[in-house]
Amino acid sequence: MKYANQLQNLGTETAFAVSAQAKEWASQGNKVYPFHLGDINLPTPENIVEATVKSIKDGFTGYCPSEGIFPLREALANDVGYKRGVEYGPGNVAVQPGGKPTIGKFISAIMDPGDEILYPNPGYPIYESQIEYQGGRAVPYSYFQTETGFDIDIEKLKDSINEKTVAIIYNNYQNPMSAESSDKEMQHIAEIAIENDLWVLSDEAYFEIIYEGDAKSIVSIPGMRERTVILYTFSKKFAMTGWRVGGSIGPEEIIKRIAKFNVNAESCTTHFIQNAMVEALNGDQSGSIEILKTLKERRDEAVKGLNAIDGIDILTPRTTFYLFPNVTKVLKRKNMKSVEELQNGALRHANVSFCTRDHFGRAQDNEADSYIRLAYSGISSEDIVEGLNALKKYFEEQ
Amino acid sequence: MKYANQLQNLGTETAFAVSAQAKEWASQGNKVYPFHLGDINLPTPENIVEATVKSIKDGFTGYCPSEGIFPLREALANDVGYKRGVEYGPGNVAVQPGGKPTIGKFISAIMDPGDEILYPNPGYPIYESQIEYQGGRAVPYSYFQTETGFDIDIEKLKDSINEKTVAIIYNNYQNPMSAESSDKEMQHIAEIAIENDLWVLSDEAYFEIIYEGDAKSIVSIPGMRERTVILYTFSKKFAMTGWRVGGSIGPEEIIKRIAKFNVNAESCTTHFIQNAMVEALNGDQSGSIEILKTLKERRDEAVKGLNAIDGIDILTPRTTFYLFPNVTKVLKRKNMKSVEELQNGALRHANVSFCTRDHFGRAQDNEADSYIRLAYSGISSEDIVEGLNALKKYFEEQ
Repeated sequence: MKYANQLQNLGTETAFAVSAQAKEWASQGNKVYPFHLGDINLPTPENIVEATVKSIKDGFTGYCPSEGIFPLREALANDVGYKRGVEYGPGNVAVQPGGKPTIGKFISAIMDPGDEILYPNPGYPIYESQIEYQGGRAVPYSYFQTETGFDIDIEKLKDSINEKTVAIIYNNYQNPMSAESSDKEMQHIAEIAIENDLWVLSDEAYFEIIYEGDAKSIVSIPGMRERTVILYTFSKKFAMTGWRVGGSIGPEEIIKRIAKFNVNAESCTTHFIQNAMVEALNGDQSGSIEILKTLKERRDEAVKGLNAIDGIDILTPRTTFYLFPNVTKVLKRKNMKSVEELQNGALRHANVSFCTRDHFGRAQDNEADSYIRLAYSGISSEDIVEGLNALKKYFEEQ
Repeated sequence: MKYANQLQNLGTETAFAVSAQAKEWASQGNKVYPFHLGDINLPTPENIVEATVKSIKDGFTGYCPSEGIFPLREALANDVGYKRGVEYGPGNVAVQPGGKPTIGKFISAIMDPGDEILYPNPGYPIYESQIEYQGGRAVPYSYFQTETGFDIDIEKLKDSINEKTVAIIYNNYQNPMSAESSDKEMQHIAEIAIENDLWVLSDEAYFEIIYEGDAKSIVSIPGMRERTVILYTFSKKFAMTGWRVGGSIGPEEIIKRIAKFNVNAESCTTHFIQNAMVEALNGDQSGSIEILKTLKERRDEAVKGLNAIDGIDILTPRTTFYLFPNVTKVLKRKNMKSVEELQNGALRHANVSFCTRDHFGRAQDNEADSYIRLAYSGISSEDIVEGLNALKKYFEEQ
């Protein structure tokens, strides 16, 4: 009896180790300020809960189509299309248990072993894991810090493309950096994809976590709708991370293939939850508006608290529920060699738990600065203030 | 832009085509007797529904561990272990969205490209699909009809093993044949696995759909617990096919690897549903007893109805909700060359919909007889009687 060789190329979310560490510290009687969680400690809107309960009681408890129930595919096509200014129909939608399944299935649909896929780094670690596990080469593209946030290193990205490149993974409204593309940057990515005839996986998990102004999707650029698969999730907007419902939205031909993976992998996504998601999309939106309002208050507290720390200077991102401060000066002051040391120390001396850059893909050779990631989705404003006061004290100690 | 070459080796459940055909026929105003569905048209027990509603309202709506919540892993370990006479702990359990995900993840964990896996044919079509999609060789083992049901062709199975064989997929209480192993047959399979140091995937989806007497699992045979992964599902026993909750149960080392696939594929299984499954396992069992009672009544009606047809002679299986009658004499009388012709005719002339042997893996060269599969889980006893009367008329016509 043996295990498959390819398992050695399967990655994971190393951030789970941070959760375990925080839990262990809390179990010793310490109050932990949880800035490490990409989860949301707010209830799912009441109308969605009621619709779900009704769906169970109405007997939506049997199998349903692998590609999703027709009313939800229709509702998603309309909603996602309308908000991005493109036309989608039910045939463009495959429903899945969460946004995440789209990553592996998209890669399976278009990549052969030896092919290369460009992906953002720092970025969601499952991109790297799935590309390499499936026998491809994960080619990172990077960001640099600017006056206004983080920009993609477009020249390096262009230079990484060769005849083996088959796709770009693009995560505008980005985890962990909260980066967002200017119109010009998005246009550049689109031009590169079109010129090189590449697929694009547009991870739009945070497309509706926008606190000011509008969101824009790369599918709205001419020539992109036909080569882009959108990763859609209900998790963030409706505080439904543990419900596991989302989907892939894109050209019919690739969606059919993704639905065939659904048949092979999980049969279908929970029937009564799908039924309730029609209400989530088309019903009263006051619940999601309230969630966004709470997150915005937390963002403002968190930005203020971080900027009060000597050596940290962070802008206010318009999107996601993450902050990605540069802690190079803090490390220098504390004479520390790694952000890991800082992370361990912050838990032990300030009861503050967070992730670091190292939890978001393999660090690249040329990275001079050090970053940590704080999430404010799983912690109250009050605890944000308390926690960041404690962090200030610890970070400012020599 | 291209698609992955390996997609050509991805199979599907061709039985979905039968559903589509039945739906089309019904949409023309015909009453269809649905014997094709492996779904259950009975409500999920009330205590499970209530526990689910309470879990949502209690806020079990955020992420939970990829391997499943601890109380459910503990409850499953106890329940599954107790019913099979072996010891399991929470570390032996990985919860997933349904029983099906275990098939692909088990194969991914232990098979390299070029390896061979033995699988039952006729059998659940996803075995063949996943082995071949993942680059292995799917080696069928077959059954022969006996006085008491269907027996595995053990000699042929033995002869199929070579140095590339890594696993046997074993589906006692079998779909589509309702076959069940004698103690001797199960012992043979175990000996073969041990002698050749093979993994076993024991698909126990129907382990608790037993109408008379007890069920027995291959893990109860000494030497088997440490090489076997059980596919477990809540779908059948509790009429929960559309809820999508199940799991893999086996040695800790392989379960850890399967949980790592969970991280990469779907993050976790719906949190509040997991919470309710503790009630399903440990709470009032009268709902599942009632479901089993109803299915048994249907079985008896269906067996009686089929045996009333000239040329059909079927035993009463003790398990599953399928019947797999030999229709060779019917085809001969009707001068038909294929079961597909019979299936199409039955829908058009008797409004009866069913699957055939061809929906359960590629037919093998040496198959002399023809079989169809009728499911009685999605049709009332009254409709079973009506439908099989209509079928009798059609089958007996020359």
